[in-house]
Formats: sequence, structure tokens, C-alpha cells
Amino acid sequence: MAIKEGLRPGGRSARVQESVHNATRELLEAHERSSVTVPMIAARAGVTPSTIYRRWGDLSALLADVALERMRPDSEPANTGSLRGDLRAWAEQYLDEMSSEPGRNMMRDVQCSQTPGYCVTLIGGQLQTIVDRYPDSAPPNVDRLINLLAAPTVFRILFASAPLQVEELHELIELALE
Amino acid sequence: MAIKEGLRPGGRSARVQESVHNATRELLEAHERSSVTVPMIAARAGVTPSTIYRRWGDLSALLADVALERMRPDSEPANTGSLRGDLRAWAEQYLDEMSSEPGRNMMRDVQCSQTPGYCVTLIGGQLQTIVDRYPDSAPPNVDRLINLLAAPTVFRILFASAPLQVEELHELIELALE
Repeated sequence: MAIKEGLRPGGRSARVQESVHNATRELLEAHERSSVTVPMIAARAGVTPSTIYRRWGDLSALLADVALERMRPDSEPANTGSLRGDLRAWAEQYLDEMSSEPGRNMMRDVQCSQTPGYCVTLIGGQLQTIVDRYPDSAPPNVDRLINLLAAPTVFRILFASAPLQVEELHELIELALE
Repeated sequence: MAIKEGLRPGGRSARVQESVHNATRELLEAHERSSVTVPMIAARAGVTPSTIYRRWGDLSALLADVALERMRPDSEPANTGSLRGDLRAWAEQYLDEMSSEPGRNMMRDVQCSQTPGYCVTLIGGQLQTIVDRYPDSAPPNVDRLINLLAAPTVFRILFASAPLQVEELHELIELALE
């Protein structure tokens, strides 16, 4: 994410980035990902291919950057009024999103990023928001929630023949709350 | 793994496969992976590039096939005389292997395989071997061990800024044994 640091919002550099990100997202929605190329993105974004190469290095780095940006949640986790309820809502949505074709592609792209660790930072931020709502119920710490909820969700999607079932997810939540 | 089914051991097809796998492994050890190409592998294996394309389709499918083959454990899990001891030995070795550069590359390659689910089958087989040694200690089922030990190990390597610490792994083993 280093490339974003120090960008003046609304400055030329920030506008180029936004335009390239938007072009990439639109092309990924409209085309097979293997057919999307840097010249296509450049044409749509109204920049030259060399602008993209200079700034991102190559296509996989750009895709990783866009994937990380998309992983940034666009809202607070749902507030259901209970810790268990919030965790269920969050974990079920996470399972849904990551199991989808765009979710799988995001996970694949993010691994090519210079900063894949940012994923866990994002997830940790959301779980921390939930945990902070219930200080009186001695909530589990966020690392435990990451290990017991996010990890099995993603691992099973990437490396098993079937994703986690919702019932298994609920069992893992109970274990995390013990 | 379909391409391996029905191969006559020692037959021409099996010999081609072994030779291509060996050439790939040797080249991956000697060169940056991004510089390894199908023509290089073909030359070393003594086959034509078209033999490789016909059989595997493309380089990423061949790398995935080789990675899956390497993930196949070459020995039984260590037998320490206790369930806890066997799980610790297995999980520490798994963490070690997957954190290494070849381990990370294997995980990346396997995701391009047609059968990434085979990973969990391999891991499950090893954990089942351990569990079957201790029928009297009401061992946890294998899915629980996969979710609580293998998943956090791999997830943290791929998506967090730091891998699991051995102490965290031990805590997860205690949780799995509860």
C-alpha cells in the first residue's frame, strides 16, 4: 500500500490511481480475467500503459492493489445487539463473499501483493469493532477470532473440496466464545 | 490428479511424467521460478514442449501437479507415544514446511491445480493416522483438527504479516483436545 501513502487527495496522482482502479474493476466485471491486459486498462483509464508499468510494476501487482482496495469493507459490521449475533452475521457474510467467484479471485490476487498482511489488518479491524461493543461480556481477543473463524473459512475455500458449512461456522463461533 | 489415474507403472506415459516432474523440480531448485519455462523443462526432461502442453495444458497446471506431488508426505507422522505429542510434532513440522519459501510456492502453485482439494485429503490422511493410534483417548475428529491446526497455520502465512507462533499453535492444540 506504500504507493498510496502521501497521495494528496484530489491531486493528479490520486486521480490517476482512481481512474486506473475503476477501469480495472470495470474490465474485470465485463471480461474473463485472463483476457484483461495492461493496454486495455490504460485505454479505458485514459492513461498510457507506461504510466501503469511505472506505478505498479506489472499487471499482477495492479490486480493485487485493486483486490486489497475491494477488500476494504464499505460499512461497519452489522450490530445485532449481541456478541454472538454480531459474530454470526459477520462470519456468515465473510463466508458468502469469499466463496463467490469474485471473492476467490480477490484472495488469489491479494497473494501477489507486496502487503498481503493488510488482509488480516482489515479483518482484525472489523472484529475489533464488534468486540469493543461488548466490553462486559469478556469477549475473546481478535487473534483468536481470526484463527478460529476467518482462517478455516478461507483455508477450506482454497484447499478443500467443499467450503465450510454454516453449521460448522456456528460451532467454531461457540468454541471461540468459550 | 486424473492424469495419473490408470498409468501403467513403468509404462512410457509414467516414464514421461516422472522425467518431466524431475526436470521441473530440479529447475525450480536451481532458478528463480519466474524464469522457468516449458521449453527449459522439456529440454531437460528430453521431451518436446508439445508433449508437455498436450499433457498438462500449461505451465501453471504442470507446476500445480508437481506441487501436489511434493505435498504427498514421504513418511508416517512421528509417533511420540501420546496424542498431544504426535499432534505437536505434526503441527510444528507442518508450520515449518509451509513457512519456508518452497512451502509458500507449493501453496501458491496448488491453488492453480484442478484438484486443490487434494491438499486437505493428504493432511486429513496424516491426521487420521495419528488419531487412529489413540482410540481410547476420545480423540477429536479430523475436520476439527484441520480447522483448528492446519487452517490458521496456512491462513496466517498467506494473509497476515507474521506466521503463527509455536506458542499459539500449542494453544490451538489444547483447544482442539478439549
